Amino acid sequence: MSKIKVAVAGLGRIGKIHLKNLCRNFPEIEVVAVMDVLDESKKIADEFNVPVFVKSFDELLAIEGVDAVVICSPTDTHADYVVKAANAGKQIFCEKPLDLSLDRVKEVLEIVEKSAVKLMLGFNRRFDPEFKKIKQLVEDDAIGDVQIVKITSRDPGPPPVSYIKVSGGLFLDMTIHDFDMARYISGKSVKEVFAKGAVMVDPGIGEAGDIDTAIITLTFEDDSMAVIDNSRKAVYGYDQRLEVFGSKGMAQAENNFPNHHKLYTETGISGDLPLHFFLERYDASYNREMSEFIEALVSGSEMPVGGNDGLLSIAIGLAAKKSVAEGRPVKLTEILN
Amino acid sequence: MSKIKVAVAGLGRIGKIHLKNLCRNFPEIEVVAVMDVLDESKKIADEFNVPVFVKSFDELLAIEGVDAVVICSPTDTHADYVVKAANAGKQIFCEKPLDLSLDRVKEVLEIVEKSAVKLMLGFNRRFDPEFKKIKQLVEDDAIGDVQIVKITSRDPGPPPVSYIKVSGGLFLDMTIHDFDMARYISGKSVKEVFAKGAVMVDPGIGEAGDIDTAIITLTFEDDSMAVIDNSRKAVYGYDQRLEVFGSKGMAQAENNFPNHHKLYTETGISGDLPLHFFLERYDASYNREMSEFIEALVSGSEMPVGGNDGLLSIAIGLAAKKSVAEGRPVKLTEILN
Amino acid sequence: MSKIKVAVAGLGRIGKIHLKNLCRNFPEIEVVAVMDVLDESKKIADEFNVPVFVKSFDELLAIEGVDAVVICSPTDTHADYVVKAANAGKQIFCEKPLDLSLDRVKEVLEIVEKSAVKLMLGFNRRFDPEFKKIKQLVEDDAIGDVQIVKITSRDPGPPPVSYIKVSGGLFLDMTIHDFDMARYISGKSVKEVFAKGAVMVDPGIGEAGDIDTAIITLTFEDDSMAVIDNSRKAVYGYDQRLEVFGSKGMAQAENNFPNHHKLYTETGISGDLPLHFFLERYDASYNREMSEFIEALVSGSEMPVGGNDGLLSIAIGLAAKKSVAEGRPVKLTEILN
Amino acid sequence: MSKIKVAVAGLGRIGKIHLKNLCRNFPEIEVVAVMDVLDESKKIADEFNVPVFVKSFDELLAIEGVDAVVICSPTDTHADYVVKAANAGKQIFCEKPLDLSLDRVKEVLEIVEKSAVKLMLGFNRRFDPEFKKIKQLVEDDAIGDVQIVKITSRDPGPPPVSYIKVSGGLFLDMTIHDFDMARYISGKSVKEVFAKGAVMVDPGIGEAGDIDTAIITLTFEDDSMAVIDNSRKAVYGYDQRLEVFGSKGMAQAENNFPNHHKLYTETGISGDLPLHFFLERYDASYNREMSEFIEALVSGSEMPVGGNDGLLSIAIGLAAKKSVAEGRPVKLTEILN
Repeated sequence: MSKIKVAVAGLGRIGKIHLKNLCRNFPEIEVVAVMDVLDESKKIADEFNVPVFVKSFDELLAIEGVDAVVICSPTDTHADYVVKAANAGKQIFCEKPLDLSLDRVKEVLEIVEKSAVKLMLGFNRRFDPEFKKIKQLVEDDAIGDVQIVKITSRDPGPPPVSYIKVSGGLFLDMTIHDFDMARYISGKSVKEVFAKGAVMVDPGIGEAGDIDTAIITLTFEDDSMAVIDNSRKAVYGYDQRLEVFGSKGMAQAENNFPNHHKLYTETGISGDLPLHFFLERYDASYNREMSEFIEALVSGSEMPVGGNDGLLSIAIGLAAKKSVAEGRPVKLTEILN
Repeated sequence: MSKIKVAVAGLGRIGKIHLKNLCRNFPEIEVVAVMDVLDESKKIADEFNVPVFVKSFDELLAIEGVDAVVICSPTDTHADYVVKAANAGKQIFCEKPLDLSLDRVKEVLEIVEKSAVKLMLGFNRRFDPEFKKIKQLVEDDAIGDVQIVKITSRDPGPPPVSYIKVSGGLFLDMTIHDFDMARYISGKSVKEVFAKGAVMVDPGIGEAGDIDTAIITLTFEDDSMAVIDNSRKAVYGYDQRLEVFGSKGMAQAENNFPNHHKLYTETGISGDLPLHFFLERYDASYNREMSEFIEALVSGSEMPVGGNDGLLSIAIGLAAKKSVAEGRPVKLTEILN
Repeated sequence: MSKIKVAVAGLGRIGKIHLKNLCRNFPEIEVVAVMDVLDESKKIADEFNVPVFVKSFDELLAIEGVDAVVICSPTDTHADYVVKAANAGKQIFCEKPLDLSLDRVKEVLEIVEKSAVKLMLGFNRRFDPEFKKIKQLVEDDAIGDVQIVKITSRDPGPPPVSYIKVSGGLFLDMTIHDFDMARYISGKSVKEVFAKGAVMVDPGIGEAGDIDTAIITLTFEDDSMAVIDNSRKAVYGYDQRLEVFGSKGMAQAENNFPNHHKLYTETGISGDLPLHFFLERYDASYNREMSEFIEALVSGSEMPVGGNDGLLSIAIGLAAKKSVAEGRPVKLTEILN
Repeated sequence: MSKIKVAVAGLGRIGKIHLKNLCRNFPEIEVVAVMDVLDESKKIADEFNVPVFVKSFDELLAIEGVDAVVICSPTDTHADYVVKAANAGKQIFCEKPLDLSLDRVKEVLEIVEKSAVKLMLGFNRRFDPEFKKIKQLVEDDAIGDVQIVKITSRDPGPPPVSYIKVSGGLFLDMTIHDFDMARYISGKSVKEVFAKGAVMVDPGIGEAGDIDTAIITLTFEDDSMAVIDNSRKAVYGYDQRLEVFGSKGMAQAENNFPNHHKLYTETGISGDLPLHFFLERYDASYNREMSEFIEALVSGSEMPVGGNDGLLSIAIGLAAKKSVAEGRPVKLTEILN
């Protein structure tokens, strides 16, 4: 059986993770080419023995025999690259978000829909072992009817204000993962969003028109609810927890730690902080995510995260922005229609 | 030194707890009389060797030498009894809430204010060792500026629908404790309330015009926030947790358990459920509460929970009701003015 | 029904605890007299409204109508007082150990045996909620056949060397509780003892002929085992844990804490130390112990801890001493016969 | 810089783990050949693109340019292979134990000593992140002088009796890891061993002359102690814990789990069992172990685990066997001289 030929576009932090996983852990595929706009990224290609390095996405698509592309380039290239890849008949994995404009996302998804290819979006947290376990408990009906979903999602520190200005802001850049998690874990559709935001971490973020602290209440179609709390800066590190409460019980997922030692001294009991940020915390999830992408490629089955998941998370993010701006709950239909 | 003479009004569940603590744990006071409308409550008086048992509050106040009254009778008697006790010059401990009507509460507090007596309200959770520890960490600045307060407050099962009809509903009967906790733990004033509610536990509660599941976002004067989640029915028992997130760190208070054993078997690791309900969970808090009341009596110092704390919690509760009814955030000024 | 009349001998730390529990928590009994050799202990009698205070045990026994005595005086008085009380026909609760001499213990137990009274010994840890839960799991066969019992027992600091000289040393003064726990939790007889000891905490303890650090392996009749580790000084406080491993699983009992908060800061996660010493840690156990003593008095049923339990724990302690002295395992029959 | 050329001998469970790690995670080395006595192991070579597959160790050594060998073949081949590799001038990583005969081990170590090569032994648990953290705390003097080391080491199930017969028994096959851990974590020499053993799991193990349950007390040169408890069968899975108690505090290492979820239901709180056995539990340790071996190869520095570590663990194991057989503590000098 011949190997599936994969090309990777974009060799930033996430691109390098996917490249490493693809090269090391999946004998059923072969990375035949990588693309990055920076010359120095050729070194990365060499390190992983990838035979072809190019600097544009068009060149990448022109390479003979590529079956699938993994798109990890900056957000503003996602939509174009996905359209090009779909037109070229390549299977697609693309990092989230597809685009910050809902209309553009819809347009892209229509093109993909009409094409012969499938698209998977990089909501990696769905593949985290802690959260996957909770999802499984929900599916096994161990929790019963889901009534309340609680997501704690706090970063160890804010990105540069310059990045915040182009990222779409807290809700589209950071909370978007939590919006997807709320939908995924409950298996329910969101109908209304109420968000309160504040600038507590860095006034510069406020001057850039964004917030750095937020509480968001999502109402699902059946009136059950999710609540998310966000901060751009938890001094103790990356805080990623999940709790699902239902008619039969409650399940909690904890942070991940480098070790679980306890030290007892005269002054108290202490232990290590959680894994510091997403590269460490979600290391296993990135690998599983790629594994499920490859499995879907091989088997021809449905992608585990589809384009519509991306669309809805963006819509919820836009509703949250509108809710903060207008000081009122916003129906998702206001955004989607 | 002569002992302080205390009389207890109302010998329901809470009344009996206060009576027991007063009789057993505080040698500096003496319970000289108890009052209850039911004849059979005389047995309780006898059990604790309380010399006088009466059936009306007026009789209780008429007893010679009573210094202070502890009011644990039904909610609809609180306002009247407090007014009578204040007029009679008795120091007052009264269970929450003072009344379901804000105007009546204001009226009563004015009377107390003008009187020579002090009033303490029974927000017992402030005296729980778990929450007191978190409060101390906030005061010690171990958490820094408080940015997010998270309160989980779920009952093991709903009260009878008949009770719900007269109790003022979820927000005034149950969440009122959480509103007080949010104010107490943060030391901040609430300026806005947004609440979403649903009927997930019992349709009868919905038919009675109330909700049984809720998420409430409180905005403090400085834009920091608190979020509360409530359910009338957690099948695993009483769930009372608190988390405070700030600029220097985060502190969590856990549920209380009958023991902390872990059992490892072929099928998993298991442990006991939390203490089932408030009588067990807040056993220590009731004792400490009474202890601080007596200390304030003895020393003449400020009461640790004042009438205004009751007023504000009721106002927040009314704002939450209005928020659910009108589907929008409600400013506290809308309620208070 | 008339109340059982109890007299308490000895008002040191433990005596005061028992007195307080007896006075406050058991309406079915009445403390009619207390005895202590110190004049100033009369204050304690007054504080608890005990009508009679005497300074000798003979006077105590001479008081009309006393049904039971609770003996909390120094160890070297236990044997004499028990014999006198038995001869006077009083039911007896006595703190451990009965005596440091095995022959004297046997003699006393024979006298009690022939008398009309029952004797309960103060192995209070059997009544600790954490350990009781483990015992219940063993009895419910949740752990299966017990194969290994592990006891961690460390004090926050050593007693004065002067006390160590008269206490019988580590094994008879401190480990004796653990020997009883090993027997109680397993429900098995000990046949062999091997102990290693060291002086790690205070050279003065070594000079007094004792050790301050020890590991003891007990072999039960069926070859299953218990292991105990002791230290006179755990800088982090009182460390009292238990683990039982068997054919169906394993159960663990944890230390007790003043609260279970967790504080996350830039430098790590921290929490409070265990309750500092036995008065706090075993507070509940002292009360339950007295409760079961009273229950046995009232119902006339078997005492929950008998004289033989004291005898065997002392014998194991003597075997442990011999094992350290001779550097070899010691059969219990070498001690008992 | 040219890559270090490594050959792997033996492709059983451990061999495959080392091969996978070597091929995937260390770009600085190249696996040039593998050897296994079974024909079908060639498939494994192919899977990892290893160019050369041979069936004898001599052939393996004959391959041009091999710098180092990783020996994972059965225990009874270790000594011969190490001698051959040393004579051939290849750097050596060898799984434990070197041999079951102390004389043979001494002989082999002398040959290695005189050769130009270095030998690292596979005590992988030293590289486990949980235990490494505790070691670091000991080295940082966070625990002070080590007084008691406690090791819990229980397997999920016994190996076949046929294996037990040739493995050297519990102490040389299983506890040997714990003996090494006691030495490693304390940094101290063992002077005396006392072991009690029992057959609690499978009478067949007893019939084969071995035990399946044991408690071992090690005395270090300075009289501080370690205690190890072993069982061949913990129904709840692989139990690998460590506790170090010292003059400044105490540190604990926990088991590893597939996730840390908690599920609260009507019947209790539950969570997942520890990772089932050594392949999962020590996955990270095998990788780090190989990483430190390669680092030592590259830098020419000391091997992190030397031949003497193997010698001493075997000697302690033999002392433990003798202790059980003779029912007395055994000095290590009795074994070593």
